[in-house]
Amino acid sequence: MKRPLALAAVCLLCAGASASFGNASLEQQFDQALDAHDMAQWLKLMSAEANNVGSPHDKANAEWELKKFQEFGWDAHIETFQVLYPTPVKEAIELVGKKSWHATLQEPPIKGDTSATAKQAPLPAYLAYQGDGDVTAPLVYVNYGMRDDYKALERMGVSVKGKIVIARYGAGWRGLKPRLAAEHGAVGCIIYSDPSDDGYSVDPTYPAGPARPPRSFQRGSVEDMTLFTGDPLTPAVGATADAKRLKINESPVILKIPALPISYADGQVLLAQLGGQTVPESWRGRLPLTYRVGPSAAKVHLLVKSQWSLKPIYDVVAMLKGSELPDEWVLRGNHHDGWVFGAADPLSGQVTLLEEARVLGMLAKQGWRPKRSIVYLSWDGEEPGLLGSTEWAEQHGAELKQKAVLYINTDSNGRGILEVEGSHDLEHFVNQVAADVTDPETRASVGDRRRAKMRTDALASRDPENAARLKEDAKRAADPSKDFPIGALGSGSDYSAFIEHLGLPALNVEYGQEGNNGGVYHSRYDTYEHFTRFGDPGFVYNVVLAKTIGRMVLRAADSDLPLARPTNFADTVESYVKEVKKLADDKRQAAEIQDKMLADHAFHLAADPTKSSGEPTALRPVPAIDFASLDAAVTRLKASAAVYDAAFDRNAATLTPEARAKLRGLMLSLDQTLAPAEVGLPDRIWYLNQIYAPGRFTGYGAKTIPGVREAIEDERFDDAVKYIKVIAGVLDAYSARLDQATAVLSGK
Amino acid sequence: MKRPLALAAVCLLCAGASASFGNASLEQQFDQALDAHDMAQWLKLMSAEANNVGSPHDKANAEWELKKFQEFGWDAHIETFQVLYPTPVKEAIELVGKKSWHATLQEPPIKGDTSATAKQAPLPAYLAYQGDGDVTAPLVYVNYGMRDDYKALERMGVSVKGKIVIARYGAGWRGLKPRLAAEHGAVGCIIYSDPSDDGYSVDPTYPAGPARPPRSFQRGSVEDMTLFTGDPLTPAVGATADAKRLKINESPVILKIPALPISYADGQVLLAQLGGQTVPESWRGRLPLTYRVGPSAAKVHLLVKSQWSLKPIYDVVAMLKGSELPDEWVLRGNHHDGWVFGAADPLSGQVTLLEEARVLGMLAKQGWRPKRSIVYLSWDGEEPGLLGSTEWAEQHGAELKQKAVLYINTDSNGRGILEVEGSHDLEHFVNQVAADVTDPETRASVGDRRRAKMRTDALASRDPENAARLKEDAKRAADPSKDFPIGALGSGSDYSAFIEHLGLPALNVEYGQEGNNGGVYHSRYDTYEHFTRFGDPGFVYNVVLAKTIGRMVLRAADSDLPLARPTNFADTVESYVKEVKKLADDKRQAAEIQDKMLADHAFHLAADPTKSSGEPTALRPVPAIDFASLDAAVTRLKASAAVYDAAFDRNAATLTPEARAKLRGLMLSLDQTLAPAEVGLPDRIWYLNQIYAPGRFTGYGAKTIPGVREAIEDERFDDAVKYIKVIAGVLDAYSARLDQATAVLSGK
Repeated sequence: MKRPLALAAVCLLCAGASASFGNASLEQQFDQALDAHDMAQWLKLMSAEANNVGSPHDKANAEWELKKFQEFGWDAHIETFQVLYPTPVKEAIELVGKKSWHATLQEPPIKGDTSATAKQAPLPAYLAYQGDGDVTAPLVYVNYGMRDDYKALERMGVSVKGKIVIARYGAGWRGLKPRLAAEHGAVGCIIYSDPSDDGYSVDPTYPAGPARPPRSFQRGSVEDMTLFTGDPLTPAVGATADAKRLKINESPVILKIPALPISYADGQVLLAQLGGQTVPESWRGRLPLTYRVGPSAAKVHLLVKSQWSLKPIYDVVAMLKGSELPDEWVLRGNHHDGWVFGAADPLSGQVTLLEEARVLGMLAKQGWRPKRSIVYLSWDGEEPGLLGSTEWAEQHGAELKQKAVLYINTDSNGRGILEVEGSHDLEHFVNQVAADVTDPETRASVGDRRRAKMRTDALASRDPENAARLKEDAKRAADPSKDFPIGALGSGSDYSAFIEHLGLPALNVEYGQEGNNGGVYHSRYDTYEHFTRFGDPGFVYNVVLAKTIGRMVLRAADSDLPLARPTNFADTVESYVKEVKKLADDKRQAAEIQDKMLADHAFHLAADPTKSSGEPTALRPVPAIDFASLDAAVTRLKASAAVYDAAFDRNAATLTPEARAKLRGLMLSLDQTLAPAEVGLPDRIWYLNQIYAPGRFTGYGAKTIPGVREAIEDERFDDAVKYIKVIAGVLDAYSARLDQATAVLSGK
Repeated sequence: MKRPLALAAVCLLCAGASASFGNASLEQQFDQALDAHDMAQWLKLMSAEANNVGSPHDKANAEWELKKFQEFGWDAHIETFQVLYPTPVKEAIELVGKKSWHATLQEPPIKGDTSATAKQAPLPAYLAYQGDGDVTAPLVYVNYGMRDDYKALERMGVSVKGKIVIARYGAGWRGLKPRLAAEHGAVGCIIYSDPSDDGYSVDPTYPAGPARPPRSFQRGSVEDMTLFTGDPLTPAVGATADAKRLKINESPVILKIPALPISYADGQVLLAQLGGQTVPESWRGRLPLTYRVGPSAAKVHLLVKSQWSLKPIYDVVAMLKGSELPDEWVLRGNHHDGWVFGAADPLSGQVTLLEEARVLGMLAKQGWRPKRSIVYLSWDGEEPGLLGSTEWAEQHGAELKQKAVLYINTDSNGRGILEVEGSHDLEHFVNQVAADVTDPETRASVGDRRRAKMRTDALASRDPENAARLKEDAKRAADPSKDFPIGALGSGSDYSAFIEHLGLPALNVEYGQEGNNGGVYHSRYDTYEHFTRFGDPGFVYNVVLAKTIGRMVLRAADSDLPLARPTNFADTVESYVKEVKKLADDKRQAAEIQDKMLADHAFHLAADPTKSSGEPTALRPVPAIDFASLDAAVTRLKASAAVYDAAFDRNAATLTPEARAKLRGLMLSLDQTLAPAEVGLPDRIWYLNQIYAPGRFTGYGAKTIPGVREAIEDERFDDAVKYIKVIAGVLDAYSARLDQATAVLSGK
């Protein structure tokens, strides 16, 4: 059954959302001026040649964009940084022995696709900031190569010491795979794309369908961005020409072993070499073979040699100056560098940003001026390590902390459902925007569609780890009197330095889940043809994204009141604390159960003696952890937030201009109280935000209240105790700031 | 790391088990006389030719076994029944159209294997008691073809009406697949073995490894045994030559549509024809293609024609008469018919049974006589529908209810871990035996190994549905002062008629999980060579099985006290009632959530409009259900059981012979109180046991307290209310019987 496109009844839902504060007529003008044809034309142009860092077309795109911004009436310039960027010189993956074989480290072109017509050769198989090397060793399969996989290997009695590991893409950020492999003694790391994860299992393969073809592979960065993002040689400072730099071998974010990605056509050949026991069910991909753990009888030769040198990157910075509050900035960015042609990633988001800029420029030419300044940012060097955004944020950190109201990020975009992650005091702001943008497929608001999706996702989920949160989220999403929840930011795009290093409020926005770009992610097949066939035919959701971000920018720029709704933040933090307490209890019970099992030799007794097996490393007993200070801070936060929100609703509209200015001053840096410069996260002090961080062992995925959560996960119980106090401290500072703001609102 | 074979420390665990009541010296004699060479020789002989019902070798095996029993000194005969048995005459699966193609419905022989040397042609691809037909229609993929899969199809907006479905083996009993397909309007059903479930994903394929080769398929029965087992024409009575019979078209257990099994080599061809949307992740097998739901553009032609006639089956019945209590019978059975050569299934268990019989006969010749009579039973016709056991149990039902102390079943056996399912008042009996049998791989007791396995299984499980029970079971297994839990009996082997129709206490016992026979299940490759390479090299676990069953038989035959430990039963039933209440609560909440989602159009809003989609059928609201009578019955049961067990421990050893006889009389038919003849389960009154049944929608898997559990699952809330009273009634009867027995024990 095809479902009807128009559903009159669903609009009943919209009524529940609280009244928006946007300028409806301005927003309507903005919407009506948006033109999908612009985006189509620009996307074709920008993705015509490979545009990775160091390629001629990358620089040409920046220069072309600069001209466009200027043409649109913006005050624009290119800001250049000098970053360490390794260029591959020589690489090989070979089977050593009688039947020699070598992997194909270049993707073949596909007829009828930009892929086949480009003049520049695409970057070969490559992982930026892997550690060059030339190794020959047997192969071991490590599934996704995540921490739990190494625990399972321990139970299988298999070591990767001195071996080359082969891991499949997925389950966590790619950079963790070689890092964990090296930590376990492996000498090299190969990562392949299993058809299970983005190949023929997911959809027919390109060009028949959107999924990854057999000879495609995923490039990417393996810089250890969980320590810091940006140029590996200049942590926490801008990589200007004369910046003080680490030596290459001093940089902790460059990996120590060689690593390369391969296709599943090649992965199949390597996996077929593996002996040893058959892997557990959850380790099996969907190649037509028996997945075995290894080691292989045949040895594999892995060679990577790069040229390590400083290269320029080109950030385009464009400003539309505010009429009343020029020193309050609304920031909005998207990167422009891809791995090859980068049509979906990042140019689908980039051309949306440009189209917004064109229309904002047009409105400005027609006489409208934003109250606050609007800064549009087209980043270079995101792919190797969020280089352009990080260096710019570090270089201008002091000024940004004075002026930035929020940072709004986008990246790839596609057909489907609204996804927003970010600072939870902006959750209500996001909900108001989402209630006012219409989804073209259903004619419901994109917010209502998001709500519906959260409810069906919770219903469909079979994931015991996330069941509780999904259910809780779905419950909130089902209640139109409440804001639907947004996710927490981890890493993976250019917001990181803003929220996690500077402590600025930030949002990351995209549409997706229906347009399938995943199958060509970071491959030469992420082209104009692929995007327009599968990603977002007709650029329909690029227009919806522009409408969404346009509203966010217009409202943030024109409001003379703060955007934050702190009760959303308080409720969210309360749920994090609850989760972390449960985590400690669960870990305690797990350690007790495991301790008894080890004492009873249960692991040995249950194992098949014809297969190698091992016992798990004993878990550390979990001490009683005193959460009292954190509980007290949450109680205070909830109270302060509730009082602030009530005072805001009652009095904000009638404040004197002086009081408004004072209120804005207090609230502009509210979120920065969460990221005090003097603390940082354990062993990664570049990460200053005590509420949001990418997980040290998830990479992309957020870990909230990470100082405590990760300490418990990693059995660093002293750190947990220490960071309970740190987090209580930052929450208290946040509450204190709210109390000051409430006093202003109450005329005190 | 290879784990050490001897673990001195683990024997500490054994001490916790309560003292056994076996005759240690007799059991030692029994053990020492067991000879693996017998079993090897017999297995080779019995599996030399195809031995399915109607084949010459099936009859020859029965006659040969009769002679062996007689040779061993048993009083033996063959009992014959006349059962409806369809023999395939003509069958085809073809692709219709320009590129015609037909499936191979015979498995090719494999060199070096009995498979290649047999003189009789194996039965082709066949599903016994499918409904003959000749249909041509498009194909739709229905995953495992279970109820939840049809709910997912509904959400995908795909109907199977007028289509032929293709389902993969697994997730539930095969007979449900064509039945559910027909109920949803399909005109035919094809079942294939996906490599994900027993092919190359699981292990290298035969002959390189144990798993299913590409051209192998699984035969089997699709008789609707969830209604009744045995001959389709003679429900509840023995299929003697002159029995009153239904007409073929009156039998409700014969399916209405044609159905055939195919190999995954052929399955791949058919699946590649399917259009429509890509299936959800959990529906994807591991063939190298995109699994799509269909329908196919090309039509499929499915033809099955059988010859439907009565055929004789041959049960071998052998008795070793009791010296003191000849009219109390200890029953022990295993079937002898296979689908082809049947080396693992059923002959691995059958030759074990024979070897036990040989040694028991030898002990008898040496002067020992059992107090009770021992009856050994070699069943025919298990594969088409538990024919031999059911007809015999029905024919001798009245006598069995007077005389049978318990029925012990085995079937396939293999290397590995002890698995027992059965009547929970025998749980303690099982534990005592398991504590006294040594596992040859670990030198721990098989009970301790079982305990260890339950603990590691609970730790490894990611299944949210069974997590609570696995955790609870592991907790009990970890406590050596408690009995490890045994499973509940559903169906799938010859115990069904005994426990579920007659209400006799029963056990099903096997070793497994390490020897991989699953890959050749019901195929021509289930051969002597396969079994001795992969199933149980050296017949080591056949000997362990013989020691286990030998102890059970010897102890049951020689004890002049009842075997039951009712507290185990009471605790288990209490847990069932808890589960069922939670089920009602969960269903109630699910119905409420879904009701709101339907009202809000959430399913439509969340769906991708470029794919067909549909709304789920509304769940019935779950009324408040009054469990009070059942709660009261459980409370009484727990009290009566505790008092009985205490009285037994205190006084049983010192009872007068008269009191013992009275106690035995009361306890022999204790479990029959759970299966009153006048009630039966809703719509399947052949199933009389109110505690244990195979699920109407699981087939093999047990549903405990099924009258209530399935009523809630199926939204028959009136039935739930009715059966709460029925089950409370049978539990009260059980308690009353216990109270009578306690009075005897207490000298009242």
